[in-house]
Amino acid sequence: MSEFRILEIKESIFGNNNKQADLLRKELKGKGIFLLNLMASPGAGKTTTLTQTLNRLKDEMKIGVMEADIDSDVDAVTIAKTGVKVIQLHTGGMCHLDADMTRQGMEGLGVDDLDLVVLENVGNLVCPAEFDTGSSKNAMILSVPEGDDKPLKYPLMFTICDVLLINKIDVMSVFDFDLEVCKERVLKLNPNIKIIPISARTGEGVDEFAQWLRDEVKKWKEQ
Amino acid sequence: MSEFRILEIKESIFGNNNKQADLLRKELKGKGIFLLNLMASPGAGKTTTLTQTLNRLKDEMKIGVMEADIDSDVDAVTIAKTGVKVIQLHTGGMCHLDADMTRQGMEGLGVDDLDLVVLENVGNLVCPAEFDTGSSKNAMILSVPEGDDKPLKYPLMFTICDVLLINKIDVMSVFDFDLEVCKERVLKLNPNIKIIPISARTGEGVDEFAQWLRDEVKKWKEQ
Repeated sequence: MSEFRILEIKESIFGNNNKQADLLRKELKGKGIFLLNLMASPGAGKTTTLTQTLNRLKDEMKIGVMEADIDSDVDAVTIAKTGVKVIQLHTGGMCHLDADMTRQGMEGLGVDDLDLVVLENVGNLVCPAEFDTGSSKNAMILSVPEGDDKPLKYPLMFTICDVLLINKIDVMSVFDFDLEVCKERVLKLNPNIKIIPISARTGEGVDEFAQWLRDEVKKWKEQ
Repeated sequence: MSEFRILEIKESIFGNNNKQADLLRKELKGKGIFLLNLMASPGAGKTTTLTQTLNRLKDEMKIGVMEADIDSDVDAVTIAKTGVKVIQLHTGGMCHLDADMTRQGMEGLGVDDLDLVVLENVGNLVCPAEFDTGSSKNAMILSVPEGDDKPLKYPLMFTICDVLLINKIDVMSVFDFDLEVCKERVLKLNPNIKIIPISARTGEGVDEFAQWLRDEVKKWKEQ
């Protein structure tokens, strides 16, 4: 298990978040560091999915994880067990991270030797969708128990993501979730999004997500 | 099915929300109108639970429902089928309602002849917890698939609620959810909270919640 520290994030003082985000993205590009912004509702399975994915990638690239949370360190403890570099970010009640807060986290983590940094954003489908963190790509997890109507209710989140993981497909039979209807609703909002059904618990589909991430990290370094 | 209209809520201009909330609560008290603020994550089952509860109470009291959402009307359509008075509130991207926004909703709905008004708040465990809406009581739904660690991660939400419904207990066997551990974590944060395990799908436990609400509405009028 790796050790980790807890960083209290300060509220951003910058008015123009988009400018700060573009600046951070450009800097990370220059250093060959890929930043994935992972978003979802509470309980959708962000940490379990991330653990499964890290176990598939950690021997072939240098990875760091930033766990953003209101004030617990439950997720950082879980991620630290994978052995990757991790830091817990406390947002002090704030419901999202913006680019400056993400930068604070990366400075706290120390990222210069890393290939891939994953930001596990605060569990929420509203606020994180509105703030560009400076990430290379945005990923979202929707879990089957949440229902296939979520794209209708939180359209912005589905619009700004590059990849959507539909998690907990192992329990699809006990919920009224229509995968095809859900996919249609998502693709209508965002025709370019990559959709991968997974079960973080059984591991189904996680290889495909790990491959997507591997390819994106590679492209980011080569472009 | 009752008809409903959609109201675009304006951002509040008041700096002191607590004062506005106390004022609204006092006014509602004077008119004998009970306001329940219902909060949960996306997909926890707010609308289904509400539908089940309305069907148990609608013949004995006059009820209105305000469905707050970013920009869909999916939930208002569902609630309208119960025949109760309903209005859809669009928050235009805002992740919560404060007291002034709640007041706008109540004026739009028309509440003077009602005994009970339910505000289905935006699906989110962070922001709605921070803003007093002026409600008589706060209710929260946590669903089994979200996990029993949610009280550790979103403590404020559990602290400010008067009643917690633990929903989707019919699928408990397929998830790693420890009901007793969850209850302990919640009661440690908030020893006075009433906890009711339910299944909005099968109806289990909904009678107990309906009875709690019936009692609270009665107390509110008599006090």
